Amino acid sequence: MQSFTLKQVAEVIGGKVEGDEHDTIYTLCKIEDGHKGGLSFLANPKYLPYVYTTNATAIIVSDEFIAEQPISATLIRVKDPYSAFAKLLTFYDEQTKPAANISDKADISATAVIGKNVYVGAFAVIGDDVSIGDNCFIYPHTVISNHCTVGNNTTIYAGVKIYAGCTVGSGCIIHAGAVIGADGFGFAPNNGTYDKIPQIGNVIIKDHVEIGANTCVDKATMGATVIEEGVKLDNLIQIAHNVTVGKNTIMASQVGISGSAKIGENCMFGGQVGVAGHLSIANGTKLGAQSGVPGSIKKENTTLLGSPPIDPLVFMRSVVHFKNLDDIVKRLKAVEEIVNC
Amino acid sequence: MQSFTLKQVAEVIGGKVEGDEHDTIYTLCKIEDGHKGGLSFLANPKYLPYVYTTNATAIIVSDEFIAEQPISATLIRVKDPYSAFAKLLTFYDEQTKPAANISDKADISATAVIGKNVYVGAFAVIGDDVSIGDNCFIYPHTVISNHCTVGNNTTIYAGVKIYAGCTVGSGCIIHAGAVIGADGFGFAPNNGTYDKIPQIGNVIIKDHVEIGANTCVDKATMGATVIEEGVKLDNLIQIAHNVTVGKNTIMASQVGISGSAKIGENCMFGGQVGVAGHLSIANGTKLGAQSGVPGSIKKENTTLLGSPPIDPLVFMRSVVHFKNLDDIVKRLKAVEEIVNC
Amino acid sequence: MQSFTLKQVAEVIGGKVEGDEHDTIYTLCKIEDGHKGGLSFLANPKYLPYVYTTNATAIIVSDEFIAEQPISATLIRVKDPYSAFAKLLTFYDEQTKPAANISDKADISATAVIGKNVYVGAFAVIGDDVSIGDNCFIYPHTVISNHCTVGNNTTIYAGVKIYAGCTVGSGCIIHAGAVIGADGFGFAPNNGTYDKIPQIGNVIIKDHVEIGANTCVDKATMGATVIEEGVKLDNLIQIAHNVTVGKNTIMASQVGISGSAKIGENCMFGGQVGVAGHLSIANGTKLGAQSGVPGSIKKENTTLLGSPPIDPLVFMRSVVHFKNLDDIVKRLKAVEEIVNC
Repeated sequence: MQSFTLKQVAEVIGGKVEGDEHDTIYTLCKIEDGHKGGLSFLANPKYLPYVYTTNATAIIVSDEFIAEQPISATLIRVKDPYSAFAKLLTFYDEQTKPAANISDKADISATAVIGKNVYVGAFAVIGDDVSIGDNCFIYPHTVISNHCTVGNNTTIYAGVKIYAGCTVGSGCIIHAGAVIGADGFGFAPNNGTYDKIPQIGNVIIKDHVEIGANTCVDKATMGATVIEEGVKLDNLIQIAHNVTVGKNTIMASQVGISGSAKIGENCMFGGQVGVAGHLSIANGTKLGAQSGVPGSIKKENTTLLGSPPIDPLVFMRSVVHFKNLDDIVKRLKAVEEIVNC
Repeated sequence: MQSFTLKQVAEVIGGKVEGDEHDTIYTLCKIEDGHKGGLSFLANPKYLPYVYTTNATAIIVSDEFIAEQPISATLIRVKDPYSAFAKLLTFYDEQTKPAANISDKADISATAVIGKNVYVGAFAVIGDDVSIGDNCFIYPHTVISNHCTVGNNTTIYAGVKIYAGCTVGSGCIIHAGAVIGADGFGFAPNNGTYDKIPQIGNVIIKDHVEIGANTCVDKATMGATVIEEGVKLDNLIQIAHNVTVGKNTIMASQVGISGSAKIGENCMFGGQVGVAGHLSIANGTKLGAQSGVPGSIKKENTTLLGSPPIDPLVFMRSVVHFKNLDDIVKRLKAVEEIVNC
Repeated sequence: MQSFTLKQVAEVIGGKVEGDEHDTIYTLCKIEDGHKGGLSFLANPKYLPYVYTTNATAIIVSDEFIAEQPISATLIRVKDPYSAFAKLLTFYDEQTKPAANISDKADISATAVIGKNVYVGAFAVIGDDVSIGDNCFIYPHTVISNHCTVGNNTTIYAGVKIYAGCTVGSGCIIHAGAVIGADGFGFAPNNGTYDKIPQIGNVIIKDHVEIGANTCVDKATMGATVIEEGVKLDNLIQIAHNVTVGKNTIMASQVGISGSAKIGENCMFGGQVGVAGHLSIANGTKLGAQSGVPGSIKKENTTLLGSPPIDPLVFMRSVVHFKNLDDIVKRLKAVEEIVNC
């Protein structure tokens, strides 16, 4: 990657170099993992000891920081080290983005409309009547099928497949291998076999949604599967047909939401949680990892754990007793013997 | 999407328009989610109240239907509204299919044989000695490796990867991102490291199978992993090497079946179920979501839940007691104190 | 597939044909699944009865083997039948590999460096400054983004997506659809919404690692997510950001490891195991399928099962009592009634 002198870094974040401003860094690192060429920061006092031992080339510190031992790293002083570092993270991240350019190896329909300042990578397929906003990144091997709409400032990574008729909002990020709009899993039993119920709905992804790698969001039977604004889905998640996921809800990896479930706003689901179909989860529900939810959760802002999910403290207490069940049953038997003779 | 007049719709389903036959609809919708331009239906009396309140442009109703209040939607009368609507769903779904055409951007081996009336999308890869039947849809970015066979009327969506030597039947649907025929997970321990056991078998998918997005079916070590006729697998499922899944068995999302398991016919597995290797599951077994199966299930047509799975009623009762274990142990202690003094 | 005469087979494994050396086989098979054209072997005496009943065309047996009944298959005698068969499995497997050749339909950056004797399939994308070693197989539709490094003798199957800046070692196998280096799932809460924390780290995959189909390994926030030498990951696994997986650890399908967890060496995790973030798992830990690990495991070489995981024997005993909890509670109540009157 590209290198920067500490002088250049200090200019970007409005800081003052204390040491050799011609030293160069090429990456950002945690202070406890500091290495030559790395730039770190000190914000949380918990990490103070590392200032004196880190191998980072430079450390961003507060204007008020007073060293109590010698420091081998060069210091860059700013008012707010955390904000300065966050600014650099974003700056660094943006350096890695490809330039706006439409690959001549992409397959783009004559009826597709693509906004300004857009990157489309090699072998991307963009179908009929697709509309893509400004400042988007469409990485190689993405398929955006007929009649889809993508907003502004959205990034779709390599190999994402979006079925026909879906919409993706602005400021979204969809990671590699995600599948948006595959058929919902709907069949009508017919004498021991199953007839397919055609799935003619779509998926609507609102603004500022992030969808993880290889996650699947199925289209609705009719109508729409809806991912509301600000939702963040991790990798390998299943969102079934006709589900709604409320605003700013966040789900860790491998969660599965069954058909027609309505998930509230501002929920947080741990990894591998499963939610049954046709139920409602209240706003602000927090579910511990691996929880299984067979029925609706009506009270808002509760934290639950287990299958079915219960109060986490009750769960943790019961789990201890579960381990001792053999002993408990022996104690019961002993009491029975005493009582019955 | 395309629009149709109610007159055109009535002709397709053999119905009679009651109202303005020049009104147009462009999609199908549920009566409770009716909107302008949508066509809905009334079959289940449970939905009767929506007839009077829906915003759908038109509703398919029975010849016998008698309105008891004013209805704003136009009616189309038929003998069997559900069948008529199902016919339209299928009709609508077929409108969205691409025309038969082989993209000149696909990479097709000179030794591949492709049937009549087939669609092959851009950047599809079709290997040596591959045979593809009539009326198939091979979407963009599909890879069908050397020596594979695909039957008639089969649809393979974007980005599916099929390893060499596998066979897919007729009337199958494989959704985007599914991987068919990756190596089984077989290793021989060798002094703390693992030697790979070459996996030289294949996957055989019989007729009328549907496989969900990003689902994986591994090839056999030797011989075949077999998905029998009529099986329906949802998204993100793992089928390991040498597994057999019996006819008309249906599995919800994120199920995992370990190596060499034999799954019976007409089984139904809920989401996130796990099945251990080298065991048999009897025909007609129903497993609740998140169940974990460590051993064979020999009795046919049982419904089970939990890890290991037990009778669902027993499970539900035990789960209630689990929640109260702390109280139960306190009660036991109280009894012990009385008895022991 | 290609056919071989038994004479040719015998030459490869240094054996002696007992029967018609002009007979041909075209595949390898298990002795219990023997069929015409198949070559099998007998090593484990447990399978002895099948020697007399198998339909395999030929069987590799020990020099010392003495038949006690007539055998229809032709025999090939060698010193060590298992080794001879393993040699043939590897030989067979290698026959199916494509020839070294770089497809002119691949999109390869002018600054990429590709070693000797490499296969690159159609529509593969190889980015700027990528380095690929000798004897690699890069199947169609693979994306290896800018600044990635791939060692010697590594196979990357169709549709694998590797984000920028990641490294893959030598002798690795990555199966179709795997995603290496997608963003870690990191967000900072901001008044009910979430701000994305840029993920600028990478993934480092050491030598002799195998990664299953559609498995995801996220890049680190800063620094690296590390998969150490000899690790074997099955399909549909989630490895979150900043995780380290120790040498020769093996994980079955659908396991999920949360952010910053440190997994020890020589561990074995069953399918669907979940591990929480920011914890350590000791070397040699074995976790049964579906286990959920909320805290660190410090003692090495333990076998555990459940959520949270406990001794498997204790788990199995407690699970039996769990099933009987209703009865246990009734017994407790009966005792209480006796004691309280």
